Formats: sequence, structure tokens, C-alpha cells
Amino acid sequence: MVTRRQVNTGILSTAATAATVSMAGRAAFAQMAQTIALPPPVMTGGKSLMQALKDRKSIREYADRPVSDQDLSNLLWAAWGVNRTADDGRTAPRWRDAYLLDIYLTRADGVWHYEPKNHRLLFHMAGDLRGQTTTGQPFVATAPLNLVYAVDGSKLTGTDSEKGAVAGATAAVTGENVYLYCASAGLATVFRGSVPGEALAKTLKLAPGQMIQFAQTVGYPKA
Amino acid sequence: MVTRRQVNTGILSTAATAATVSMAGRAAFAQMAQTIALPPPVMTGGKSLMQALKDRKSIREYADRPVSDQDLSNLLWAAWGVNRTADDGRTAPRWRDAYLLDIYLTRADGVWHYEPKNHRLLFHMAGDLRGQTTTGQPFVATAPLNLVYAVDGSKLTGTDSEKGAVAGATAAVTGENVYLYCASAGLATVFRGSVPGEALAKTLKLAPGQMIQFAQTVGYPKA
Repeated sequence: MVTRRQVNTGILSTAATAATVSMAGRAAFAQMAQTIALPPPVMTGGKSLMQALKDRKSIREYADRPVSDQDLSNLLWAAWGVNRTADDGRTAPRWRDAYLLDIYLTRADGVWHYEPKNHRLLFHMAGDLRGQTTTGQPFVATAPLNLVYAVDGSKLTGTDSEKGAVAGATAAVTGENVYLYCASAGLATVFRGSVPGEALAKTLKLAPGQMIQFAQTVGYPKA
Repeated sequence: MVTRRQVNTGILSTAATAATVSMAGRAAFAQMAQTIALPPPVMTGGKSLMQALKDRKSIREYADRPVSDQDLSNLLWAAWGVNRTADDGRTAPRWRDAYLLDIYLTRADGVWHYEPKNHRLLFHMAGDLRGQTTTGQPFVATAPLNLVYAVDGSKLTGTDSEKGAVAGATAAVTGENVYLYCASAGLATVFRGSVPGEALAKTLKLAPGQMIQFAQTVGYPKA
């Protein structure tokens, strides 16, 4: 497993050490640095479903500290993880036999893409884009994690309203899973519609058809 | 508390007994018959959140038996209940400080409207309309309960796609809560987009602006 700390250290030190390691070693490292393996989600402990629902709420004030590796693993598995490996069943539904969702994580250390099948993060883009996931809520830029929900609109049919409804529903199911995990584990979150979707899709260099309507801030509550 | 059985018995026997009770008694009874008080939701027991997420899936084969009063109470509270009484906080979020959702229950005994604040059902319309909540899935008409999600589009702004996204998200958050309650309690459910929304809104005599895009079938799994 490559932790975020190792990846960060690796990225910072690559230039300094590149001349001293073999080409094969450099290639292997470059590949490793593009992914962050997450620890397996912990399925025991936490609150009951009913208690998590009882404690579920939106929070807009966050502590600065990053989300721990274990909380991040649990959170992403809850959000959109594989819960039935035999047929790639997930914690959120398909739409007409297709999964439409991509989750991008915008953090201080760049933008990452969650890969449910291998439960890991793929490096997507350098730069701290957290502040670009909002149309003006100041807490977003400094909260440790902003999930960006991109939905593949190329697979949708019907009127604009109908397509929008399916896209919105796809993001929101996962968003509610994140709410409940945060309620269970003592994290803070808010699902947000004030997102500059088209501009953000361009910045993130998404494929044509990928629609962004919602994002979700995650962290720990401010003490 | 008036159970569904009592209400049904009451409706059937109203004609027979109307002549023998006082006018005040008849008025009180008519008012009672328009509502079904639900037992308080049971907040203890059930699965952990993570186990409910693990067991969450769509099921399309249902036993005929009705949903018990207690399961119905727990399910509706999980779906859209009041979890913070001080400010009418719910298990699903507001949109710009407004709640947009209405949940209609189509059952063999008619159509009912869930009222979260008093955690009860209000009589909405006579008739078994379960089969009219689908564009052609046969299991829908005989499953005991079909929830119909109506969203108040008059409060939405933006493009059709943006309005659709918020409407879809509003229904889907509640739908995911229902999924998780069903996974926790051993019920079966499927969230459905194949709903004749405009026709159904007319049949249900909804207000102008109320949009139906999604419904959700609920029952017990077929043995």
C-alpha cells in the first residue's frame, strides 16, 4: 500500500533522486505514485443505521486536519464501493444496467479519481482545486476534502429535465451514503448544489458528456 | 392510534352505522378515518450502517403480504422523518431552506400521503393505483407498497436540466434511505425511473408544479 504521505514525499523528492535510481526503478515509482491504495474498509463498529439516520445533518464548519486514511477508505466504500463482488454490485444503483458516476476527490495534494473495483485512488490532476468546486462558499476551499460527482450524460435519454433527474439522483444516492457514514463516524459533511459545473468540468478536463451538478464537502467538525 | 385494519373496517361499516351514531360522533369518526397514526419508530436494533450498506441491493420479486405497521413506521421515518425536532430537521436535506418532497403511498387500500411532522398518513385518494405507478413492470401492481416521490418544481430555478437534477436528487436521497432501511430490516425494494410521471400526477390530482420522476416498490422478499 502506498499512503498519501509516501506519495507526497515521493513526488517532492522525485527530481532530487531521479538521477540516482535505475530507469526501471523510476518507471515503477512513477506508476506507484499515480495511485493510492486505500486500506480495506472496516465493516465492524460504527453506529446502527437508525442512529446514523438520527444523527444525519449538514455541517459547514470544518477543522483543518485531513481525513484519515481509514475514514477515507470507509467513506468511499460506503459512497460507491463494491458490496457484491460477483456482479460488481455497489452501494448505489445502476441506471439501466450501467454505472454513470465518477467521483473526483479535490484535496490540497491534487485531484484524485476513486476506482471502486480496486478500492484505490488514481491520480487525476495536480493542483489544489478545492476552491474551484464552489460558486462562493468560503469554507469549501479550506475543508480537507471536496468530492465532485460527475455523471455520464451520454448514456441518458429523454428530455433535459428527465436526463437531469437521473443525473441528480445518481449523485444524490452516493451523497446520502456519505452523509450517513459521516454521521456514524463523527465526520462533518454537506452536499452542495452551488457548483460551477461547466467550468469545473473543463478545468478537470472531463470527457464530453460528463456532467457536474453536485459536490460534497467532507472533513471533521470544527472543535 | 388508528390502525389500517380499524380504518378499513370503519370505512366499510360507516354506511351501516351512520344512522345509529350522533352527528358529533360521525364527524369525529370521519376525521379519524382520514388519518392513520403510525407507531413510534423503533430506533434500537437493526443492522449497523456498514452492514446495511453491505446488504443493500434491488429486489424485484415480492411476497404478497402487506408491510407491517412497525416496519412502515420505521421505513417512513428513515425515508423522510423528523430527526431534529427543534428546527424540523429531517433524514434528508432541504433545498435552499425548503423541503420539496411529498411521499404518496399507493396501496391496495388507496393512496395515502406521509406527514413527517406528525408521523402519520393522511388519506389522499381511494382506489388501488399501484399498477399505475409503472410503465410496464408487472411486479409493481401486486407488491404491497409503492412510494411515489413528488417534488415541488415551483420552488426550483435554472435550466430544465438543473431543475431536473435537484428534483431527482431530492427523491433519490429519500430512496436511498429506504434502501438502507430495507437492507437492515429484511425488506425488499427497488427505486424505479420507469414511471408515467405526468399521467400519474394527473391521476393523483397533484398541484401544478409537482413533478413525479421516481417511484419505489417496497415489500418483503418472495420466499
